[in-house]
This record gives sequence, structure tokens and C-alpha cells, in this order.
Amino acid sequence: MTQAIDLLFINATVLTMDKKMNQYDPGAVAVQGDSILAVGPEAELKKAYSAKETVDCKGKVLMPGLVNAHTHVPMTLLRGLADDLRLDVWLMGYMLPVEREFVSPEFVRLGTQIACAEQIRSGVTTFNDMYFFEDDIAEATASAGMRAVCGESVMKFPAPDAPAFEDSIAYAREFIQKWKGHPLIVPAIAPHAPYSTTPEILRTCAEIAKEHDVPLHIHISETAFEVETMRNEQGMPVVPYVKKQGLLEAKVIAAHCVHIDIGEMKTLQHVNAGVAHNPSSNLKLASGFAPIPKMLENGLNVGIGTDGPASNNDLDMFEEIRLAAFIAKASSNDPTVVPAATALLMGTRLGAQALHIGHLTGSLEPGKRADLILVDTAPIHNSPRFTRDLNNAYAQLVYASKSTDVTDVMVNGKWLMRDHQLLTLQEEDLIKEARGIAKKIDAFLIEREKSVLSKLIALGGSAQEESFEVQVKVRVSDPDELIKKLNRPEIEISAYKHYHQFDDYFLFDDPTQGRLRFREDNLLNDKGLFESVRSRLTLLGQKREGELHDVLLSRSRFIAPAMHTARFYREYFKPAREIALTKDRLRWHILYKDTGFYINLDEVKEPAMGYFLEIKSRTWSRKDADKKAELANELLNLLGADDAEVVTQDYIEILTAK
Amino acid sequence: MTQAIDLLFINATVLTMDKKMNQYDPGAVAVQGDSILAVGPEAELKKAYSAKETVDCKGKVLMPGLVNAHTHVPMTLLRGLADDLRLDVWLMGYMLPVEREFVSPEFVRLGTQIACAEQIRSGVTTFNDMYFFEDDIAEATASAGMRAVCGESVMKFPAPDAPAFEDSIAYAREFIQKWKGHPLIVPAIAPHAPYSTTPEILRTCAEIAKEHDVPLHIHISETAFEVETMRNEQGMPVVPYVKKQGLLEAKVIAAHCVHIDIGEMKTLQHVNAGVAHNPSSNLKLASGFAPIPKMLENGLNVGIGTDGPASNNDLDMFEEIRLAAFIAKASSNDPTVVPAATALLMGTRLGAQALHIGHLTGSLEPGKRADLILVDTAPIHNSPRFTRDLNNAYAQLVYASKSTDVTDVMVNGKWLMRDHQLLTLQEEDLIKEARGIAKKIDAFLIEREKSVLSKLIALGGSAQEESFEVQVKVRVSDPDELIKKLNRPEIEISAYKHYHQFDDYFLFDDPTQGRLRFREDNLLNDKGLFESVRSRLTLLGQKREGELHDVLLSRSRFIAPAMHTARFYREYFKPAREIALTKDRLRWHILYKDTGFYINLDEVKEPAMGYFLEIKSRTWSRKDADKKAELANELLNLLGADDAEVVTQDYIEILTAK
Repeated sequence: MTQAIDLLFINATVLTMDKKMNQYDPGAVAVQGDSILAVGPEAELKKAYSAKETVDCKGKVLMPGLVNAHTHVPMTLLRGLADDLRLDVWLMGYMLPVEREFVSPEFVRLGTQIACAEQIRSGVTTFNDMYFFEDDIAEATASAGMRAVCGESVMKFPAPDAPAFEDSIAYAREFIQKWKGHPLIVPAIAPHAPYSTTPEILRTCAEIAKEHDVPLHIHISETAFEVETMRNEQGMPVVPYVKKQGLLEAKVIAAHCVHIDIGEMKTLQHVNAGVAHNPSSNLKLASGFAPIPKMLENGLNVGIGTDGPASNNDLDMFEEIRLAAFIAKASSNDPTVVPAATALLMGTRLGAQALHIGHLTGSLEPGKRADLILVDTAPIHNSPRFTRDLNNAYAQLVYASKSTDVTDVMVNGKWLMRDHQLLTLQEEDLIKEARGIAKKIDAFLIEREKSVLSKLIALGGSAQEESFEVQVKVRVSDPDELIKKLNRPEIEISAYKHYHQFDDYFLFDDPTQGRLRFREDNLLNDKGLFESVRSRLTLLGQKREGELHDVLLSRSRFIAPAMHTARFYREYFKPAREIALTKDRLRWHILYKDTGFYINLDEVKEPAMGYFLEIKSRTWSRKDADKKAELANELLNLLGADDAEVVTQDYIEILTAK
Repeated sequence: MTQAIDLLFINATVLTMDKKMNQYDPGAVAVQGDSILAVGPEAELKKAYSAKETVDCKGKVLMPGLVNAHTHVPMTLLRGLADDLRLDVWLMGYMLPVEREFVSPEFVRLGTQIACAEQIRSGVTTFNDMYFFEDDIAEATASAGMRAVCGESVMKFPAPDAPAFEDSIAYAREFIQKWKGHPLIVPAIAPHAPYSTTPEILRTCAEIAKEHDVPLHIHISETAFEVETMRNEQGMPVVPYVKKQGLLEAKVIAAHCVHIDIGEMKTLQHVNAGVAHNPSSNLKLASGFAPIPKMLENGLNVGIGTDGPASNNDLDMFEEIRLAAFIAKASSNDPTVVPAATALLMGTRLGAQALHIGHLTGSLEPGKRADLILVDTAPIHNSPRFTRDLNNAYAQLVYASKSTDVTDVMVNGKWLMRDHQLLTLQEEDLIKEARGIAKKIDAFLIEREKSVLSKLIALGGSAQEESFEVQVKVRVSDPDELIKKLNRPEIEISAYKHYHQFDDYFLFDDPTQGRLRFREDNLLNDKGLFESVRSRLTLLGQKREGELHDVLLSRSRFIAPAMHTARFYREYFKPAREIALTKDRLRWHILYKDTGFYINLDEVKEPAMGYFLEIKSRTWSRKDADKKAELANELLNLLGADDAEVVTQDYIEILTAK
């Protein structure tokens, strides 16, 4: 007696990608509802099942759909926007400013739909995303019929969907509760990276991930610079640092891992963390060569990702799988490592395991969801075909197949593409809409190219400082008296420095450009003698919003090391006007009620303006800023300066106001 | 008045790739006969010309056809045959044996036709080939309508189209004379590589190239091993070595150049040699990262090639161009090097210049041949599109276009593809024929997997010794007398060594398998004490053809370092029978009439067989072998052994005959 089923694929070269790497040629796959019922030789399955629909695969390869293990799908709308740039210039000069301006629920929906269309066309059935407005991304993905792990981003910087990280966390909680249990979407939380978050953010995200039993998606050790900074600042590489924050107690998906050592691999393996390897992105941004052969040797589940289409510039997993094999060989000087079968495994089953959904997808096995694709290996660019051993089939797919050879795609038992025709998306409409947005972005950037900020960022190395600035400034009549008052039990002095500071202010005709300061700090030793010098550029935004008696301020502030001379910057920025200012600064870093502040005692010497006291602190958190503003006022009282003349202007504002 | 012309392309994004990198959007190109008449803004050309045929490009990119700067086109028939192997195993274990068996004029024609179909589909209009039966390759290429530099291979090894290198040279001369001046084919000579040729071959090839003013195509410094060997043997890297042979006086196209230093770059640039960079092949075979940014800085014409489709495994220049940008960035740790425009330039104009045909093709300029392609940049995987600056167009082509986005191809003013339809080749017939050959190759290899030679080669490190063996062996009654006779003015002794040799012979039931010898040489010092040990494997072919009184012999002989123990080889090769033999050997390397010989005085100790004199030499040249055979007989006379008992058998043959 034959069993009645929904669908039977016959006459296929079936690559199961299961644990035994079974191949059946001619093979068959039986599908019932959303799941795979059986996989095996055609003759056996034909005998066992009678299907409502029989699909003759005509000798094509039938295999599990590809798993894109790390991406930012809405960035399809930013592909080709800016290329061949250094990471900081690319990210801070182009991606972040454009995202701040354009990213909205509508933007991410459209970008996601384009990404789904592109990925379905190229045989991807599952992807792992990290972006903003992830709820809209999940909606668009489910509607296109694809499977995805959708991770809502959390960063310390303001994000398009959250002015402060607290808002992202609240969003993520709600998002996870809404989508948990969906047949296609696995919600996740995505603290962006250790360098773009705080220990508090990492700990909170790990707790949420554990509480709801969802994956935690994060960028780990993408660049050598990131690791070097972590070592300098925390005395450890990145994996031990995130472990210290409790992050590895969650189901982690660690994207990149370009610069991790054997110890870190063992740590990740021990906690069953998945790794997402991104060949094109790592090459294009010159991030380096991830030690994939070593990771595989150490038993890690390594998947392959495209990364965002703005640093790739597409979502072609065939290309990524091939590159994963290529660069493993070249970088380890051994053409036998990461053979075709391993590369394809990383693009399917290992990828699904890395995303913690290996029980659902990644191989053709009874009980798994019916996520599968048909690939035509007969085109001229893949002819002829050898069948001497089982590796020939994998080599053919990895080294000569193109994503355009994918003809049919099914996810969760539903057809998404048949004979190159998409069934859930209208490509032409999407392309037309995308062109409209691209035009607006082009116009925005053409306008912005005139700005000082973009020019500063284009130089590289610049960083945005914390969003919230807490500052109180008063005139000081007796500086010695003030210094004495610092010595009191409530104030713990953790550092003290003495500088001569030479400031060159560049002013521009358009005040919205802000002011650029080129500062040279001469650090003096105990005896008041020159010890060392450092130079830096600071761009102060014009907009400055006072709150809470001029103590709490919020404004943009970008800082960059000044590696060139003042002359270079003068010629590069072409300021309309330039003002020099020299001052002597005594600077204390103090702790008051466990909170850090800088206290500056300045004597402005040229032009002579007298003495000033500044109490300063900066933070990413609005709540924290409120607290610090109160403490700053308390400190002013303690230093006996509460009735001194309050100065609400910067020195340069006082000078230019004259 | 408008000028009447054949063809006008309008409504295109024209990327000229000329010296000024001019772009016209909307642009137009005027074609008359086989050549480009004008390139410019659409409005201007529409005003100036009235064309018999007007092609509306509908906003597609119109650009020069791609130049594949290094390949072996007939190897399409070997793609996917053997992958993920070490270079020696891949080349000597699979490629060369299959080529020896299968490569024929019919094979190369079919392989070339498939390669032409694949390349036309992917926007290649010109390629630079190196293979055997190049006359047939040229015929097939011209018939498909493509432009190519066709280089007939010359090697010291026997080739499918030439039993000795003298035959290849004769073939090349005739081939060049036949094709010189053809509108599509530029004939060339292709000494395979320094390590696979002799100084004499290199000198002769250079002379032929100069005499006929044709390019000389050669592999240079592909692997670190090649450079290391050259340094050890010649005391210099590869470029100075080929310069010493006069090679750089020809119009050289140097393929690979993965391991060349700045001095070598300057040498190549000084003689206007072209370089062909092969990203996929260098990655897949783990050859290394070619220092392309340095080559470009030094003004070299660097083109991009696919290499043969057996080490790629396709002929997709879009993929190669993208990889050229990617790996330059990653290997130099700088994402700004080899930007998209430069990579595309390498795939077009610089490539044509590297092939010494920059005056014919590689850019859209009046006077050049009409070699051009249309690329659709509107598909979903390349949407949207930014136009803020001129680099956007190059980035779009390099980072997101696929070879399947090429819709139309013209070479020399003739259409080869229109709207994805090939006009000069019947793909389906080609694929069918290719499948037939693949089946035969599969069967051949399945059979061969049983052979001792293939198993030896599969271990890696084995090398074929010179084809021609000159050997004379006689019994010696008074060894001391013989040693004295060596001291005479006609014989110059350049080296002397004393060994104990332990031979293990592996014999097989099938005598055509040959005999495998595992030898351990114990080198003794002046006092007859042990100094050092080396082990090696030698596979002696069964077939042995005596000529000239048993002095000149020709038979295959493969030698490999023995890195494992005798036990390992016993278990691995499973010989039917094993015979041990121990001897004491005094070995002189002598020069007689400026010709090198080895003279062995052997005492076979176990089993005791007495003393033997051997005079030996090997060579790749048949002519040289004839000369050496005569000299060996003269030496026999000089040593007073001309009336001694001649032994025509190897020791093992004497033993097994008993």
C-alpha cells in the first residue's frame, strides 16, 4: 500500500547534506505539509508514496536551501552607495549619516522585500538579520515566505528607531514577545558589537535572550583594530570580554570572528555559539582572513553570510560559499582545506546549526521543514559533468554553479519560485520604488559633501562622542582657594594633569557647519616642564540645547586625532575665519558619589580672559545624564562656587561675541 | 550633413575605459565595418551620423568587451574533474595523465567551442590561450568569431601534440606563419614555464617570437616553491633567470607573477612585459596573493585571467574582476587599493595592453575594433543604482553585476550574442558531445585508480625524470684498477660520494604496473663512517626500449622523496612480492668532453653478486641522448672495460630471472 502525500520530487540528484552526506541519483524527496517526510532513492520513494503533485526535477540538483548566516537585509537600498573606502569613512561618513536620515519602517520594508527577492532567486531560504525596525523586517520576510532569524539592534549610539539604547531594549522585548513561536520568523536580540555597546547593554541583552530563549546576534572581532583596542582597554581579547558580561550564557551567533585565537574558539565551542563567516565583506573592507579551518577543527558550527549588501554588494550565497573555500585555501597555504563539500555544508546545515535552528532546516532529512531548492547544473558554464566520486557533485556546485542556475525554491513546504518566476514578490514595483529612494539619497549626499563634518569624517579616524554633555562653567576669582576645596572626603581624585593648550578655531560662513577646533595639548610634568604633545580635531555642532539651568546639554561632537599639521587642516577645510586661543589648564579626573567628572581650572592667557572652573561629564544615556546634571550642581556647591558668575558660552563664543 | 554608417548604439550608459575614463549617459557609439568610428554623448552622435541599423540600449551599460588575459580554453572539458588537491597531485596525478590520454585536435576544438560559448555569454571578447594543438584552437575560435592570442605550448616533457620539444617548436613555427595577420587571431609561442623548459627552449622560443614579432606567453613565479627552487638551483629569482635566457627581448605575457619582488616588477615594466593576474586559480590552488597594487604602482600593464577552467572552474571574468579588487584589498590590508574602476580597467584596457594588442581592443575609442558588450544593471540583485559620482557605475559592475547580466556581445563589428542568444555556436550539441567525453574520462580514471603510478603520484612530491636514459653496465673484475683509470686528463671529476644503499623492491602481479623501489642511501664520510641518510621512491616503467647496443634507453621513470617508512609504503602499495638488495656504491660525477655523466662502481653485497661499473646520463632531448650514447661508449673504452661482460639487466632483473 502506498501512502498518500502532498508532493513528491523525482528524477533529481539529491544532495541531502545530512550527517552521512548521503547522495541519491536518481533520488526523490517526499513532502507532507510544511515538512520533509522521506528522502532516498527514487525507486524506493515511488513505491512507498502516491503524491497529489509529482515534480520531475529533470536531473537537476535537489538540495537544502542556502542559509545566509549574517546580513542586514534593508541595506539593499544602500548597495553601491559608497565603495573602496576605509571602514571608518564608509561607516561614519556614509552609512550612519544616511541611515540616520532615511531609515524608517517603510525603508526597511522595501529593502527587505528587495533582499527577499534577490535571495529567493539565488537559492537562499533562511537568513539571519540584524537591523533597525526589525518588526517591519519580520513582517516583510514572513509575507515573502522566507525563514529568518530577525535580530533587533541595540547600540549605545542613537539609532534610527531609538534615541537611546533603553528605547531599543524596550522595542526588542516587545518584538520578541510578538514573534516568538512564528512558523517562519525566529525573533532575536542583537547588541551590535562590544565596541558599540556598554557592559550594561550586553548584560541586559543576554538576560532578555535567556529569558525568552531566543538567539543573540552580535558582531565579534571583525577587525584587528577592534581586538587591539579591547586588549588595551580591558586587558583581554573580545570573546573573554563578552563572556565576562554573561553574554555567552545566551544562544550566541557571533558574526565575523576574523581575529579570534584558539582559546576563544574553544570558549565559543564550549557554549555552542554559532559563527557567521563573511568572505566578501571581510575581503572588500580588508578586515582580514578569518581562521575558518581552525574553527572547523575545533568543532565550531561555522555558517556563511553575505553581510549587508552595502559592503558586498549583493546577497549571492553561491559566491560566498565559493569564496569561503577559496580564501581558506589561500590564507592557510593549503589547497586541500575547506574542500567543496565542507564549504557547501557551511552554507547549509552548519549554517542552520550556527543560527540555533538546525532542528528546522539546513539539510534534507525527514522531520525537517521543506526548505529546498533546485539547481540546474547543465548550463554551458558547468559542462561537462564528472561522476567518478561523490565530491564531483559538490565541486560542481561550489566552483562553477552560479546563483542564476537556481530554478525553483520552496520554504516551509510552500513554493516561492518556480522556473525562475517569483511567486510572492513583485520585482518590478520594488525596483521602481527603490530607484526613487536612491535618487533622494544621492541628492542628500551631494548636498552633504559640502559640509565640514563629512570632510572631517572623510579624513578617517573620527568618532562621535557621547550624545549627552553635562557641563557647568563659572568665573573664578581665587584659583588657589578653589584647589584647596577640592581636598575633601566626598571628592576622590583619580588623576591630575597640567597642560598648555593651543587652540586654533576654524569658523565658517554657514554657522550650521559648526566650529572646528585644532588643539595641541602640551602636557607638563610636576616641575611645569614640557613632557609630551598630542593634537586633535574637534567639530562642535552649532545646535546646543540647554536644559536644567544650562547644565545639561545635548549636541553633536565629533573628535579625531590630528595627524596632519594645522596648515594642512587650514588648506583642507578652507575656514572663513580663524581664531587662536591659548590657555593653561589644570585638570582633575574625580569621582563623586561613584560618578566620574572632569574638573578643569583654566587660565585663558591669549587673549587674557582670566580664570574659569568647568565641571564636565558625557554619557550615552539620557537617564544617566539627568543624574549627572544634579551631581554637577552639588559639586559646584561643594567647591563654594555656587554664587559665582555662571558662564553659558564656550571661550570661542565669548571671543566671537565681542 | 550626417555621415552614413553601419551601426549606431544609442540610449546607453557608455563606459569608454579610455585614458580619461570618459563616461557618457546617455551616450552613443558609432560603428563602421569592423571598427569604432565615434564615441560620445547621444545627442552629438545622433546629429552626426545616420546609421543603417540603430540599437536602442535601453539604459544598459555599453562598454568594451572583457579581456581574459590567461587561460587554457580546451580545459573546459576537464572542469570539476579533480578539485581540492595539492598542485602536484592535481597536475601530475590528474591533469597530465588525462591530457596524455585524451587531448587530440578534436578534443581541443570541442573544448574551445564550449569555452567560446561560455565566454561570449559572460561578456569576454578576447582571450589569451596556451595549450596544445593550438592551430585547432585558433580555427575553432575564429569560427566562433572571438578575438584571441593563441600560444602553442612548448615544454621539455612529451606533450599530447609533440613527443619531444623539438617537435613543439617546429609546430609553433608553422602555426605562427599560418596565422600571422589574421583579423581575429594573434598567434604566439608559449614556453610553458621556466621549471618545465630548459634554457635552450626559452632561448629558441624568444628568437622565434622576435623573428615573427608575436607575443611570448609563459607562466612566471606562480608558486613560492618555484621561486625557492630557482634560487637554490640558479642563485636568482625567476625573472632574472628568464632575462638571462634572452626571453625578455620578446613581447612577453607573464602569467601569474604571484611571487615576484619590486626589482622583478621594474625589470618587467622596463621591457613592457604584460602580466596576467589569475585570482580564482591562485586562491583555489593556494598559490598565494600576487602583489598587484605594487605592480600597478610600478606602471605594469596588469590584465586579469581566469586560468584554465580545470583550476577555476569556470571562465567568469566578472567573478575574476571582483576578486582582483577583493584580494588586493585584503592582502594589503587597505580597502582603498584597486578600487572598482581600476579592477575593471585591468579586465579591459590594461588586459589588452598586457597582451600587446592595446591598439586593437580593450576600450571604446575611435579606430579600435568594435569589441563591445551590453550589460543590464537593472536586475533586482543590482538595484537600486546611485549616480552621485562616476565611481558608482564601476562599483555597480564590479561588486554586484553577474556575468549572466551580459545581454549582447559584438566582436570585430560582428554580433556574437543578441539578447542572450548565441549566434555562432550550438550550445546544446556541444554540451552533449562534452558529456560523452566526460564519461570516457571518468571510466579511464576509475580504471587508473588501481595503478601504482597514480598511487605514487597521489602521495605528492613525485616528479617525472628525463625521458631518455643513457646507460652502459659491465661486470668488473678488478675495481682498484678501474679507479686508477679514472684519473686521466680527459675525465674531469666534479664530485665523489660513497654510499651504502638499501633497496626494497616492490613487485606487482601485473608487470605493466612497473617496479617500485624504496631506497635508503647512507652517505659515508672520508673515513667510511655514516654521515647522513636520504630515502626515496622510484617507479621504473616496465617498458624499456634498447637502441644503439643497449646504451640508449627510453622509459618512464618517476621519482619521489620518501617521507614515510618502508612499512607505510608496503601497506599503502600492497606489493605481491618484495625483494631486498644491499650494495656499496662509489659514485663519481664527471665531465667528459663538456658533458656530465655519473659513474657508479657497485659492489652488490646482499645477495653477493660482485662488482659492476655503470656509466649513466639522462636528458629530455632525443638529439642530446644520441650524442651522449656515443660518449658513453667512448668512456667505456677509456676505462679499459670495452671487452668486459656487458650486463643489459637491472640488478633486480638479474635476481628475479634466477
